[in-house]
This record gives sequence, structure tokens and C-alpha cells, in this order.
Amino acid sequence: MDIRSILDDVAAGRLSASDAHQKLSDWPAADLGFARIDNHRESRTGFVEVVYCGGKTPEQVAGILERQWTTHKTLLATRAETAHAEAAQRVVGDLEYHAVPKVLRRLDSSRTHDVPPIAVVSAGTSDLPISEEAALTVETVGHPMQRFYDVGVAGLHRVASVRNQLEECGAVIVVAGMDGALPSVVGGLISRPVIAVPTSIGYGASFNGLAALLGMLSSCAPGVTVVNIDNGFGAAIAACRINQARVPQKLSGS
Amino acid sequence: MDIRSILDDVAAGRLSASDAHQKLSDWPAADLGFARIDNHRESRTGFVEVVYCGGKTPEQVAGILERQWTTHKTLLATRAETAHAEAAQRVVGDLEYHAVPKVLRRLDSSRTHDVPPIAVVSAGTSDLPISEEAALTVETVGHPMQRFYDVGVAGLHRVASVRNQLEECGAVIVVAGMDGALPSVVGGLISRPVIAVPTSIGYGASFNGLAALLGMLSSCAPGVTVVNIDNGFGAAIAACRINQARVPQKLSGS
Amino acid sequence: MDIRSILDDVAAGRLSASDAHQKLSDWPAADLGFARIDNHRESRTGFVEVVYCGGKTPEQVAGILERQWTTHKTLLATRAETAHAEAAQRVVGDLEYHAVPKVLRRLDSSRTHDVPPIAVVSAGTSDLPISEEAALTVETVGHPMQRFYDVGVAGLHRVASVRNQLEECGAVIVVAGMDGALPSVVGGLISRPVIAVPTSIGYGASFNGLAALLGMLSSCAPGVTVVNIDNGFGAAIAACRINQARVPQKLSGS
Amino acid sequence: MDIRSILDDVAAGRLSASDAHQKLSDWPAADLGFARIDNHRESRTGFVEVVYCGGKTPEQVAGILERQWTTHKTLLATRAETAHAEAAQRVVGDLEYHAVPKVLRRLDSSRTHDVPPIAVVSAGTSDLPISEEAALTVETVGHPMQRFYDVGVAGLHRVASVRNQLEECGAVIVVAGMDGALPSVVGGLISRPVIAVPTSIGYGASFNGLAALLGMLSSCAPGVTVVNIDNGFGAAIAACRINQARVPQKLSGS
Amino acid sequence: MDIRSILDDVAAGRLSASDAHQKLSDWPAADLGFARIDNHRESRTGFVEVVYCGGKTPEQVAGILERQWTTHKTLLATRAETAHAEAAQRVVGDLEYHAVPKVLRRLDSSRTHDVPPIAVVSAGTSDLPISEEAALTVETVGHPMQRFYDVGVAGLHRVASVRNQLEECGAVIVVAGMDGALPSVVGGLISRPVIAVPTSIGYGASFNGLAALLGMLSSCAPGVTVVNIDNGFGAAIAACRINQARVPQKLSGS
Amino acid sequence: MDIRSILDDVAAGRLSASDAHQKLSDWPAADLGFARIDNHRESRTGFVEVVYCGGKTPEQVAGILERQWTTHKTLLATRAETAHAEAAQRVVGDLEYHAVPKVLRRLDSSRTHDVPPIAVVSAGTSDLPISEEAALTVETVGHPMQRFYDVGVAGLHRVASVRNQLEECGAVIVVAGMDGALPSVVGGLISRPVIAVPTSIGYGASFNGLAALLGMLSSCAPGVTVVNIDNGFGAAIAACRINQARVPQKLSGS
Amino acid sequence: MDIRSILDDVAAGRLSASDAHQKLSDWPAADLGFARIDNHRESRTGFVEVVYCGGKTPEQVAGILERQWTTHKTLLATRAETAHAEAAQRVVGDLEYHAVPKVLRRLDSSRTHDVPPIAVVSAGTSDLPISEEAALTVETVGHPMQRFYDVGVAGLHRVASVRNQLEECGAVIVVAGMDGALPSVVGGLISRPVIAVPTSIGYGASFNGLAALLGMLSSCAPGVTVVNIDNGFGAAIAACRINQARVPQKLSGS
Amino acid sequence: MDIRSILDDVAAGRLSASDAHQKLSDWPAADLGFARIDNHRESRTGFVEVVYCGGKTPEQVAGILERQWTTHKTLLATRAETAHAEAAQRVVGDLEYHAVPKVLRRLDSSRTHDVPPIAVVSAGTSDLPISEEAALTVETVGHPMQRFYDVGVAGLHRVASVRNQLEECGAVIVVAGMDGALPSVVGGLISRPVIAVPTSIGYGASFNGLAALLGMLSSCAPGVTVVNIDNGFGAAIAACRINQARVPQKLSGS
Repeated sequence: MDIRSILDDVAAGRLSASDAHQKLSDWPAADLGFARIDNHRESRTGFVEVVYCGGKTPEQVAGILERQWTTHKTLLATRAETAHAEAAQRVVGDLEYHAVPKVLRRLDSSRTHDVPPIAVVSAGTSDLPISEEAALTVETVGHPMQRFYDVGVAGLHRVASVRNQLEECGAVIVVAGMDGALPSVVGGLISRPVIAVPTSIGYGASFNGLAALLGMLSSCAPGVTVVNIDNGFGAAIAACRINQARVPQKLSGS
Repeated sequence: MDIRSILDDVAAGRLSASDAHQKLSDWPAADLGFARIDNHRESRTGFVEVVYCGGKTPEQVAGILERQWTTHKTLLATRAETAHAEAAQRVVGDLEYHAVPKVLRRLDSSRTHDVPPIAVVSAGTSDLPISEEAALTVETVGHPMQRFYDVGVAGLHRVASVRNQLEECGAVIVVAGMDGALPSVVGGLISRPVIAVPTSIGYGASFNGLAALLGMLSSCAPGVTVVNIDNGFGAAIAACRINQARVPQKLSGS
Repeated sequence: MDIRSILDDVAAGRLSASDAHQKLSDWPAADLGFARIDNHRESRTGFVEVVYCGGKTPEQVAGILERQWTTHKTLLATRAETAHAEAAQRVVGDLEYHAVPKVLRRLDSSRTHDVPPIAVVSAGTSDLPISEEAALTVETVGHPMQRFYDVGVAGLHRVASVRNQLEECGAVIVVAGMDGALPSVVGGLISRPVIAVPTSIGYGASFNGLAALLGMLSSCAPGVTVVNIDNGFGAAIAACRINQARVPQKLSGS
Repeated sequence: MDIRSILDDVAAGRLSASDAHQKLSDWPAADLGFARIDNHRESRTGFVEVVYCGGKTPEQVAGILERQWTTHKTLLATRAETAHAEAAQRVVGDLEYHAVPKVLRRLDSSRTHDVPPIAVVSAGTSDLPISEEAALTVETVGHPMQRFYDVGVAGLHRVASVRNQLEECGAVIVVAGMDGALPSVVGGLISRPVIAVPTSIGYGASFNGLAALLGMLSSCAPGVTVVNIDNGFGAAIAACRINQARVPQKLSGS
Repeated sequence: MDIRSILDDVAAGRLSASDAHQKLSDWPAADLGFARIDNHRESRTGFVEVVYCGGKTPEQVAGILERQWTTHKTLLATRAETAHAEAAQRVVGDLEYHAVPKVLRRLDSSRTHDVPPIAVVSAGTSDLPISEEAALTVETVGHPMQRFYDVGVAGLHRVASVRNQLEECGAVIVVAGMDGALPSVVGGLISRPVIAVPTSIGYGASFNGLAALLGMLSSCAPGVTVVNIDNGFGAAIAACRINQARVPQKLSGS
Repeated sequence: MDIRSILDDVAAGRLSASDAHQKLSDWPAADLGFARIDNHRESRTGFVEVVYCGGKTPEQVAGILERQWTTHKTLLATRAETAHAEAAQRVVGDLEYHAVPKVLRRLDSSRTHDVPPIAVVSAGTSDLPISEEAALTVETVGHPMQRFYDVGVAGLHRVASVRNQLEECGAVIVVAGMDGALPSVVGGLISRPVIAVPTSIGYGASFNGLAALLGMLSSCAPGVTVVNIDNGFGAAIAACRINQARVPQKLSGS
Repeated sequence: MDIRSILDDVAAGRLSASDAHQKLSDWPAADLGFARIDNHRESRTGFVEVVYCGGKTPEQVAGILERQWTTHKTLLATRAETAHAEAAQRVVGDLEYHAVPKVLRRLDSSRTHDVPPIAVVSAGTSDLPISEEAALTVETVGHPMQRFYDVGVAGLHRVASVRNQLEECGAVIVVAGMDGALPSVVGGLISRPVIAVPTSIGYGASFNGLAALLGMLSSCAPGVTVVNIDNGFGAAIAACRINQARVPQKLSGS
Repeated sequence: MDIRSILDDVAAGRLSASDAHQKLSDWPAADLGFARIDNHRESRTGFVEVVYCGGKTPEQVAGILERQWTTHKTLLATRAETAHAEAAQRVVGDLEYHAVPKVLRRLDSSRTHDVPPIAVVSAGTSDLPISEEAALTVETVGHPMQRFYDVGVAGLHRVASVRNQLEECGAVIVVAGMDGALPSVVGGLISRPVIAVPTSIGYGASFNGLAALLGMLSSCAPGVTVVNIDNGFGAAIAACRINQARVPQKLSGS
């Protein structure tokens, strides 16, 4: 954006002050705010604003969602306790609460993207809450979702048997606690983008997910990227960013 | 791959035992080995095998590269000290050694992919060795590369001024040491996949990159993924995995 | 203080033993005690003694405040649970309890300082308890206070839009959890003293505020100082120490 | 800054496009860059741009300083090894190299500020390199400097005896390694802003300054702020930010 | 397993496609899965599949055990809370719940191995929950068990007096918290395999078992191996792996 | 103890086999056990066996104390919760329970030692539980006790004013949380043995006492020794070991 | 050993005092010393005394080995630098020095045990020094050795293809750096005892082997035990302890 | 010291101003400084001032020792490199340099104390440098010294055989690296004060002495105190503080 030429245009009467204001107010990051209602943002980045409930009171969460609902059909909140859900459901319609992954969402069934599916692969049943946080987020954004749960490395045939299905996906999210070994194995089996999510499952020297996190960061399979411990939501958004990249024409409008 | 139908074909004489053996020996991970020469791998995953020189003697590195050269035009080795480079250059032709990023490579000029560019964004001049490790890897794989160096958050206008160029890229690698704040800012500015690389630049409480690593993992911008400290190579491979996903027809052959 | 000349004065009868005792009993740190009732202290250092409730029983907290109330109009206690508040309110009049930031205080409305305002800037709504601990402390000390909440780096325009207002303040307290990136950005935007407060908001690799703490200590913006995780109180006192420095005549009496 | 009114002024001819450009190009952080030559910056924030030599080659450091010298009389570089110094001295005149604190600077003797002195207090002789990094930085910025070295808490009378002198200073930098106890003692003795600098002096459980850092962050004296381990430079800039706040009229021009 | 000969057999009609399918579907790790019902596994490796209850709901645990019970007489679940036990006992018969070590098991009294006993040695009474997790696991697998509790190094005669008994065992599990010194002493007294289990007993600098873990890993007695903090179960399985090695003919069938 | 001469005495009939057995069974550490009833031990080492209640059930604690009571007048248990106390008081007479320091003890008023007093010095009121654990232990062993509470370094005159009294003590226990600076100051003021006890008082970067622990270990005052975080009991026993050393004739009987 | 009956024998003249002395002087740990020459030890525990060269001067190492050589044919020293080797080779004959694994040994070719082989499995070429430390130790003790190098999880077919050979071994040592995922995979594939050795290979978040260590301790494959980072020697001794357990008659003499 | 009565005495002419000055200048810590020459200090506390050479230049060390020599016959410096020693020996006579423990000292043969010996017990030969730092310090202070080296817990008979000798000592310093188990064993064998010194001997999970440090702090033997990693000097001074306490009459003069 060339500020000088905009101003020359205004001075010459080729551009109204009002239109110039609009252009300049977008510069450089005017309407990219996270907590602020932002219609432009969704159409540009392809995903909705999400409320992190940690450290917020039920009233704050309900208030934010209620305000968002006036302009959005799709809503998503993570780390929502029952109290957050109850407060929000009193003021917003059609909010689903998923208690195990602590996800609170409002689905817009008309929201679908013509992209390949995103896979969520998990090592064990105990990783289910985080796997579901990822899967529910992907669905809410509107991308197709495939779940491959309980395929940890102690039984290699399980992950090997789904290799071809994973290769068809746009991005693969791998969720594992304890030793966090699964992403290295998956990263060696497929060519697709692999996003590893360490979970806090385990005890003692797993140090609430630190063992899995460090192992994933040190993965011997090249090209595996990592998100925060238990951050199923972040992995899902990263996968959607990647998946959208397959549809260049959609993004040219941004 | 449907094992049963292969076996039915063998039983029916439609497939020789020898051909079936070949098919089955590839299952489930037969030719995905890292240290083993693997022609199939390059055409399938889109990137070459890479030698990590850490903990290897110059003789070992030279031996591996020499053996790879018999079947590959493109070669890449990271963390190569001068001794590794000299040993390898004695037995392999046209090896370039980049001393600052410690990269040893053999470029194949005919290797180019029709994909969007990958961006490498760095916070400061001190991050240059890692930024270059990423950039040289991307070039070696054959993807277009754009460098945006020295645009740290202490002067926000710098990164803001390149925002539109970043939005055109297939994936954006952000390299930063010290507080590692740059990926959060970039992740808030663009919709493209963002891969954060913490560097060991800094001292004291930066703990050789730990501060940047933890900050990036805890990024307030959703969808930022992270690789290991100083792992420019891994970020580049991840970016290429993502970038290839834009060209579905290429991958259908795998 | 020249001890010898004081003693010469006593020997010569120029100073009574009683007055000399008073002078010497102040040396070197006689009346600087924290937990001891100290009228001199407030007039000298400009802030009241504060009770840290962590590890104290409700009875202990109530007892200390009750005793302080005999000589002070202004009282402040931090990390006060409801039980502490109830016990104290039974014995001290006009005590306000702020449950979210866990602050218990008695305001003296006549206590105001002619100094510039102190700003509290926070990254997100979840940081509110710590931000309020800081803001309430500043108000209790009697300095003007300005709040700038929810201006995190994922939406840069928010903090940029308040830059000029921050530049007018005597000191700027920046409160942020997760990646702790906001102080680096603020430190690069203004020339005023910036005090960073990491919060324990976040999960996983934020390690209860460690990520934010290390990032702030490693800030690429020069001259940012840091206090303990969740230490809104400490940041407020530091800001008041700084702000008072603008009014030299007040301090000459100490 | 009200963008709309600026644009209205341009549309109405009350403001030239050129002047408006100037105003808008400053928004929000246009000329606050760190590595970029910025005449405006010095007059506004009161301190020069500083080169951090860690991870930079001698050629890079010399190149940056040479370019800065064309517009600045005052230059400062920290963590400069002998090779950095020699390369820079070949291209820039009147550069002093201080080998122990690894500071490379060009003093402008006409640069003095009418502010109170800044004190650097150190616990032991081994902390001298970091203390000097702070002191030389303060001098280069042009503030008066007072050194109080080797006054650790094992001999309390030493720090007690300089208490009144410290109370006269605009800000007090306290440098200590090992247990890092000195800032708590100083913070209890004086009312002035106290900036604590942990040093990496010590061994074993001092963990290269971690013990001192954690102790200082946990100081029982309220209002002590902390900078990174061995960051004498950062403490000096923070002290200068504070010290300038005493001279409001000077800053009103920014 | 020779794939080629299997395929030759199919081609020659010596083996049906169906039988070959069965054989090949087991390759390479087909029936080693952890969460999947696997009759083959028990006879080959000598121990039952075990359910880790951490992070699982009572319903999930009960469902898995109920399904296992259809094919197994022996069942074992670790880290079972009362709710897990109650849910499982409603659907599975003869389940014993041991509340202190949080073990839920179904013993098969006919399951005994003719092997030497396995010893569990513990340092103190507080280590009893973990010691019992190990002992109950060994019993469930069907190996003889000997308990030597409360023989910590503060009273050396206690462990010394049982030395000969330990020397008769097939493997010795040593459970200790706090300083974790007991395995070093036992490792120096006997020639048998020693498996050290650090426990989270202790406080402060024991860091929930980290002190014991690091000490055991750094043991001055050669040949001591270590499992995770509080991992009595893992130590028991490792001991059973070792103990079975004494009976080569049993394993030749695998 | 000379084993050969004992055996010669038996061979020569000068010593019965039974008496020799008794002597030898004590060798080398026969009756030094911690959890075993040991009359010899008390007379030799001067302090009673102590029960650590952490990780023990109320029944286990009550059972151990009941058994000890048959031979001891003095009993001591640390980290006792109310449930432990109630269970024990049902079976043992005259047990006092101190709820704040979680100490359960039976005092023997006839047990006094003619030794100098032991001092417990604490930094703040919040350290009281640990200080009292130390003080109650010293009293139970039977040494004179002096308490100096709330004399932290933020008010140096407090500890300075008790220096002479500390110099009269046999050993000085210094209890402090947060920055843990007090032992360095005390160690510089007196010549007596100083035992530092870090407490878990504090938050954030105090990391549950780690900051105080590391600071005390790195103390700039030579000759300060340290015990575990919150280990008031251990410091008391160490002080009693030291104090007894003043009375050589008492120990010659051991 | 029954002390009482020995003494009865002495009293009855059935045993001389001298013989009884000899028996008793061995109790409880008389000849189990590590640094002391001990002929009995080797025949009882099956492995030689080993010199750890870290922190020892070349003269100390040479002196110890020279003294051992007077009674032993087999000698072993680990972490030997060239200077250690040269000093030792001057005074001891037939010492081999292996520079890469830093092992110094004297082989006794007549020393062989009729036991199954021990396997050393390594993830990558960079792990070779530690793998060889393990392998050379096993050979020196006299057990058969099989090496399976460079079979990391990024190419699963490699380890899968050697599964049957591993199942024939008495114990399997698995050496891996970076993510340390290989032991989990091996532990899921075979029933034999698995000893995991984390190596310091890697950089950044591998933290010199910490990532691999934590991952191995948290392995999802039950029954994997772990030794210290880079402790190939310790793993070898543990494997030999296990392997000997297969030959009960040999051990009955101890 | 009663300040009021001193002043009354001055006022009444019973005390000269000069004498009062002398008394008061000692209050509260006037002559306890560490780096300052202090004749009074040695006679009062019983040990000399010691120079820590870490972070000091050879010139600084030589200058301090030269100045001390004018008033002291006994000198001690720790962590002295060869360069420190050579610089100091040029300006001070009769300085001995011990290169392995890096101790530089000047012994005063007439300086002996009539106290029991202090023992230094070490686990292994590799701990010798730190053991000697402790032993040389004790000798320099003038206390009798007994060395018990290489008695680690892998061969318990060694430490057991010296138990009676240790019981005769005034204080026992126990030096150990790796698992740091020896102090727990010694603390259980004797009644004397035990000071544990962790050393940085070991590798991997010993984390430069952290394993030993944490183990010693968590010792199951009550009353063991700990000093910093590798701090033989500090342990020696602590032992001398304890040992002096046996001679009350000597200390009454202070």
C-alpha cells in the first residue's frame, strides 16, 4: 500500500476522505484484533474468533459470546468448564457443550469448505479429550474431519494400516502423550504436513507433557512441527491454515 | 494397498509371486528408510535425504554422500563443520559449502517446483545462520524462496511493511531468538501457515533459545507451529510439505 | 551521618544524650522495617506497608491490619482469600474486598499525589486479576491510574492506537501471560519506563508464567524491567517509586 | 492521532499531502526501528541505538557502526570481542574498546543531561564486568554516573554507609551474583527506583545466575525490578528512561 | 517369517489365499497392539494386557475390561480410582480392588510360572503404594513374589540381613523415594538384575521424585536400570521379562 | 570394635557366645535403624526416632507410635494431618498436636540437656509453620530454644539488634522464603554455625522455595549450610548434633 | 549367614577364631568394594571391576590399572581420553584403546560364557560412540554380542526386519538420541528384556539427551528400563546381569 | 550493646567521645566486611578472609593478597588458576599453589587449635579435587584434619570400617558426586554433625552435580546439612564454625 499516492489522490479529489480513511485504517493491522468483533477477519483468514475460557469468569465468557452472536453464526470457546457453558447457554442459542474436551461451540451447518479432510491421529484412549478439541475445532471451521484414534507405537500395525488414508488428507494432526513417539513414526510414513500435539497424559518423568513435547521437537523425522502441550485447538487452526493453502483462488480475495 | 486382493491375484495366477513379493515388501514402510538409498522416496515425498553431521566423523559424512551421489543429483548435509566439508568435497563433485549456516549441498538446477514462494522472516542479524539454513534447504528442495531479514518487533513498521508479500507465500518461516515475539505478531497479521523457529541467540534467561521456544509454543496468535531451537532445516522441510499440498496432481502419483 | 561529630556534640553539651540516641537509633536502618508500625516510613518512601496474606492465617492478617489501623488511614493487603477478608473486616472499618484480584484495602480519599498517571496495559481479559492488583495498588498509594486492557499483540492496532496516551504517563506497567510478547512491542513504541508483569495465564509450555517471564527478561526492546510472575503489586510499587522521582522537592525531606 | 481529521484537512487543502505523509508515516511505529538509522529516535527517546555483537561477525558489526557514524556522534556496541573491536576501529574514528566489560563506544563529550546521577552498586569485585557495562552505557547516554562497588551483604556496614548518597540518585542499579541478596537490602534502605541485575558469577547451584535471578524476582523488598542475567546494558537504559522522567519539559517535544 | 516362501506356497497351491492372508496380516507387528484384544500376545510375551486408567473415564475402563474378560481370565488395571473400580466391578466378575496402590485385578489362580521369585525391596513405609503396585502386578502375571519392605539405608543392617535372600531371586525391584540411595547399595551387594523405582515420596527438593530419579540414573553401582517415577507396574513387567529369560524352552514357542 | 579380639575372647571362654552375638549383631549398623525400635539409639545419638507422616495412613502412623510408646517417653511425628493426630491420640497418651506446623509430639519434661540454646530466626510471619516445626523439634530433643521471628532483611535493624543474643547460641537456624537472603546476612554477622532453611513461601519465580534454596546454597557468607525446602525438622536435628558436640563427655559412652 | 551358629561353633571349638574372623569379616559387604582389588568379586558377579576415567588424572588411571593387572587378565576403563590411554599403555601390556567410544580394555580371549547373545540396537550413525561403549563392554565381560546399527523409527522396516533376531537374544540394548522413540517401538515388538540408553545426540530441545531420557522413562511399551544418558557401559553390565540369570547353576556357587 | 547507656556515659564524661566512637563504629556490623582488611575479624570468628578467584583477573587477586599480607600471616584463595597463582606468588612470599584443587594458600605453622579433628570422607577418586579444597581449607584455618577417601557406597564395608574414627571427629564432611548416596549412609552410622558436599562428577542425568545435590537435600538420614555443588571450601568453614563451638571459653572473648 502506497500511502503517498493515496494522499495525492485525496488532495486531487480523486479519492474521498472517507474512502481513504477506510484504506488507511486497515494499515497495517487495523482490523486483525482477536477479542474485537471483526467481520472482515473471518472472510479473510477463514476461521472464526475463538474464546479461551482459562482465567475468565463465566460472566465474561457469556458476555463475549453474546456480543459475537449478533454478527456471527459460528462460535467457539475452548477450556470451558460447566459453569462457563451454563452461563453462555443462557444468553446464546444452539450452543453445544462437549464436556470431555471442554469445548463450547455453535455450528453453522452451511459452512463447508471444498478441501481435503484433516486427520486427527491419537496414540491412546487417554488422549481423547485433546484429540476431540482438535477435531471439533476443525469441524467448526468447516473442514472435513477424519479420526484415527488409539493407534500408538506399541502396536505399529495399527498406524501402518491407515497410512494410505493419511496420505489422502490435507494435513495430519498427531496427538500423543507419554513418550510422544507417534509423530516421528507418522512423519516417516507419509509426505503430508504433520502437526504434533503433545498431551499431558502420563506421570512422573512425563512431567505433564514435557517428555512428549521435547521428544516431538527433537523428532528424527524431518518436517514435523509442534504446538503447545494439550493444544488441540492450535493444531486444528494450523491444519486449517495449511488446508486453505490448497485453494489459492479462495484466498485471492483477501 | 489391499493385501487380500494381491493374494487372490497370486492364487489366480494373475500376479507372479515375484511381483507380489515386490509389492508386499514395500509394506508398510519398506522403502521409507532415512539412511538407506531410496530412489522411490524422492519422487514420492518431494525432498531429498539429508545428512545430519552432528556426532558423525568427516569420513562417515563423506562416505554417505559419496554413496548417495551415485543415484542422486541433489545432496544436502546440515551442521557440517569445515572438516566434514573438506572430506566430502574430496569425493563428491560440485558440493557447495556455506560456512556460516554450516550447510553442505549439491544443487540440481533443473529441479524446480511450480509452487508459491516460501518466505523466511528473521528478527535480527544474529539469527542469520539459522535463517540461511532454512533458506538454503528450501532452495535445494527446489521451491522458490524469499528472504525478509532483520524485521524484529522493536520496530513494528518493518514487518508490517512486508505483510502483503508474506500473504502471497505458500508458507512463512519466522526465525527469532531472545523473546521470540515475532511469530506471534506475524501470526496475527497473515492467514498463511506460520512455522516458528526459535534460535539460541541471546544470553542469561534466554537459556540458549528456551525463552524463545516457550514463548512461541505459548503464542497468543492461533495456528502458529514450532520446530526445535535452531532447526532451520526442519522448518524448511515442513514448509515444503505444506507447499506441495497446493499441487495435488503431483502427489497423486505416490 | 557523621557519628564522630554527633558524639563530639554530646561530649560538648551541644546535643542531649536523648536527641543523639534518636539520631543514632535510626542508623543505619532503624526505622525501615517492613512488618513493624512505622509512621516515618510512609512520609519518607511514599507508600504504605502492605500485608502479604499468603501463608498467613485469617487471624494473623486481621491482627496486623487492626494494629496498623490505629496509626494509618490507608491499608493494603494482597493475596487475600475470602476468609482473610472476613476476619479483617470484623475488626477494621471501611475495608473494601476485591475478590477477583484478591485485594483488601482501605482507601484514604484525601491521599492524592500531583504526579502523571501510571498506566496498566494488559494483553488479554484473562490477565485482569493481576492487572487489577496493580491498578488498585497504584490507586491506594494515591497516584492517578489509567487502564488499557485487552490490547495483545495478535491485534497490533489496539496497542498502537494508545501509544500517545502511554507516552504521557509517568510509568507503564505491561501485564501479559502466554508468550509475554506485549512488553517488547510497547518498549519499542514509547520512551517511558516500562515494567513488565508476566502472568501465569496459559497452559502447557507456558509453565505457569515461566514462558512469559523468560521472554520478558530476554526482550529485544532495551530498558524493559521485569517483576515476578503475577506480581501486579510489586510492579505498582516500582511504578510509584519511579513516578515520585518526578517530584524532587517531596523527597528532599527524607 | 486522528487519522480522519488529517484526511479531512488534506481534502480541504488545510494540510499538504507531503505534510500529511510525514504525519502518517510515523504511525504507529514508523521510525522506531532498532537496526535502521533513525535520527528522530535519538531526540525522542534520549538514547542511541546500540549494537548487540553476539552472533554477529566482525564485518557485520563494523558495517553497522560505520553506517551509523555518518549520522551519529555517539555509538555503542555491547558484547564486543576483540575481533569486533578491531574490525570496527578500522572504519570508525575515536572508538574506545573496554575489554573487560566488552563494550565498544564512541563518546560525545558535548552530550550531557541535567539530571540526577544514576548509581551502580555492586556486590563484589567479580561483578565488575557487568557493573562496568552498565556504567559505561549510562555515561554514553550522557547521564551522571556514580559507582559503589564491592558492598555485598556479608559486610552490611558497607552498603549502609552509602545509603544517603544512593537516596540522592535518580535510579539505583544493583549488580550481584551468587545469592543475589543485595537488591533486597538496598530496596529496604532507600525509596528510589531499584533495578536489580543478576550476574552469572558463582558456580554449582548458582546455575550461571539463575539463583540470583530467582532471588531478585522473589525479593521481599517491594518495588524492585529485574533485568536479564548479566544485562548491565538493559539496566542502564531502564535507569535512563526513569531518570528522564524527572525532566518533563524535555520530553514534551517528542 | 519368510514372505517369499509363503507367496511361493500360495502360487503353488500349497497354501490358501485365506491362510496366507492371516499369516501376512500378522506381519510385522500385527498382533502386538496394546488396546486391542490379542490372544496370541499373552502366550508369546507371558503377560497380560494392562489398562492404564489415568485420563480415562470409568465407563471407558469398564468397557475395555468387560470386552477383555470375554477372552481372558486374568485382567489388570493400574491407577484405578474408586470410581473406575466400581464401574468395572459392575460388569466384570471377581475383580479385586486394592485401594492404596490403586490396582484393579482379576487373578487366575491356575496361572503360575516355574521361575525364581521376584523381590520387591522398599526403603520406607511411605513407599508402600508403589511397592504394592509392583508386587500385585508380578503376582497377576503369575511369578512368585517376595516382599522386603522398610529396609532403607539409614539402617544398613536391615538390607544387609536380607542379601542372601535377594541373591536367590530372579530379579530385584528396589523402590525408594527421597534420596533414592537404596538401589546403589543393593546394586553393590548382589549380582542379580536390579530395577530401581523412584517414588514421589518426599517434599521440597525431592521435586516429586526427581531427586530419587536422577540419583538412581547416576548410581555408582554399575548395572542398575531405572523406570519412571512411581512406575511399580513397569518395573514388575521388566522383572517378568527378565525372569522368563531363565526358562528358554518356554519362549521357543513364540 | 575389634572383631578378632571378641572372637578370641569367645574361644578362650572369656565371653559367652550369647554376649558376643549381642555385640556382633550391632555391627556395623545393627541398631541404627530408623523405623525399628531402638533403645540404644537414643542414648547414643541424643535424639529420638521421628515418624514422617507423608504418604502414610493414619493407621500406620498410630501403629508405629503406639509401639514406640511401650519403650519411649518421648515421641515425635512430622507432617501430621489432623487424621493422623486423631488416630494416634486414640492409642497414645499425652500426645500434643500442633496443627499449624503439623507436629505431633509427646514431651518428656525430665529430658533436658545442659547445652547452650539453639536459635530459630525467621524472615516473616508466613514462615511460622516451618519455624515452629524446627522449634518444637529442638524442644522435644530437650535443648533450650530461643525464637527470633519476623526479622527479614527489608528491615535490617531487626536482625542487627539481636546479633549478640545469636552469638550466645550453640547453633542458629535461619528460616526464610522468597529471596532467601536472610541467612547470608546472619552468616556475615555472627561466628556461630548457621543452618539455612528455605521455605516454600512466595509465588511465581520463587518456584515453591527453589529461589530461596538456590540463593542459600550460593550464599556469599562462607560456612552457611542448607537443608531441604520446608525442612524445619532436619535443621533442628542438625543443630542438636552440633550442640551436643560441645559436651564431649556425654558422647564418650557411645 | 547365621552369626549365632558360627559363634556357637567357635565356643565349642568346632571353628577356630581365625576362620570365624575370615567368615565374619566378609559380612555384610566385605569384598564387594569397587575400587579395591577383589578376586572373589569377579567369580561371583561375573564381571570385572571397571575404571571410570572422568575426573581422574592419567597417572591415577594408569596406577589403578597397573595394580589391577597383577591379579586380573581382563581390564576395562571407560571415558578414557588419549592421555589416559597413553599413560596406561606405558605400564600395562596388551591394552587396546578405542578412541571413538573412549574405551580402554584388555581382553582375555579365554573368557567366554555359554549364554545367548546380547543385542545392541542403535537409531543412527551418530549414536555409534555410545553403542560401541556398550558392545565393547559386553565383549570384555565375555558374552556374545550382536550389533544392529542405524535402524531408527523414521524407517520402520529396518527394525521390523530384525525382530526375530532380537527375540533370540538374552537382552536387548537400544541406543537412541533425539526423540528416543526407538525403545518404545522395540519394546512393542519383542518379549525380551529391553534396556534403553538415551544419548546426548541432538541439539536445542533435546537438551543433551534429556528429551530422549524423559521419553524413554515415559515409554508406552511396558517393561522398558532405562540407564543414564550416554551410559552404554551401564546398559551392558545390566544386560550381562540379566543374561547370567539364564545359567542358574553358575550362580549357585556364590 | 546498649546505645543509650553509652551516650549517657559520654554525656556524663565517663566515656570519651573517641572511645564511644570506637564502640559505636562496630555496630552492628562495622568490621565484618569480607573484602576489607579486618584484624578484629580473625580473632573473633576464628577463620581468615578468603579470596574467591572466579571472575577476577590475576592482577586483582594478586593485589588483594598483597594488601592482606601486610597484616596477616595466613592467606587463602580458592578457584585459583595457574595465572592467578603466578601473579600472586610474584608479590607474596611463601604462597603454596595446589593445582588440582586450585587452592593458593600461605600457612602459618604456629596457628593450631586444640579441637577434635575434622574428617573429610569422599566417595571416589574423582572427587579428590573438591575433597582437597575442603581439607586444605581446614588445615589453613588451623584445625586437625583426617582424610578418608574412596569409601563409596558400592562397597559398604569401607565406610563401615571407619565408623568409629568418624565418631571421634568434631564434624564430618562427606564429598560425593553421581548419586550422592554416601552422606545418607554416613548420617545413619554416626551421631556427629555431617556436612554433605555434592560434586559435579558424573555425566548425563547427574547434571553437573544436581542429582547429588537433590539427593543430599532429600536425605533419609535426619540432620544432614548440605553446601553448594563443589563447595569444599564452604563445607570446611562450616565445619570449623561447628568445631569451635566445642571450646566455649575461646569464644567468650568475642
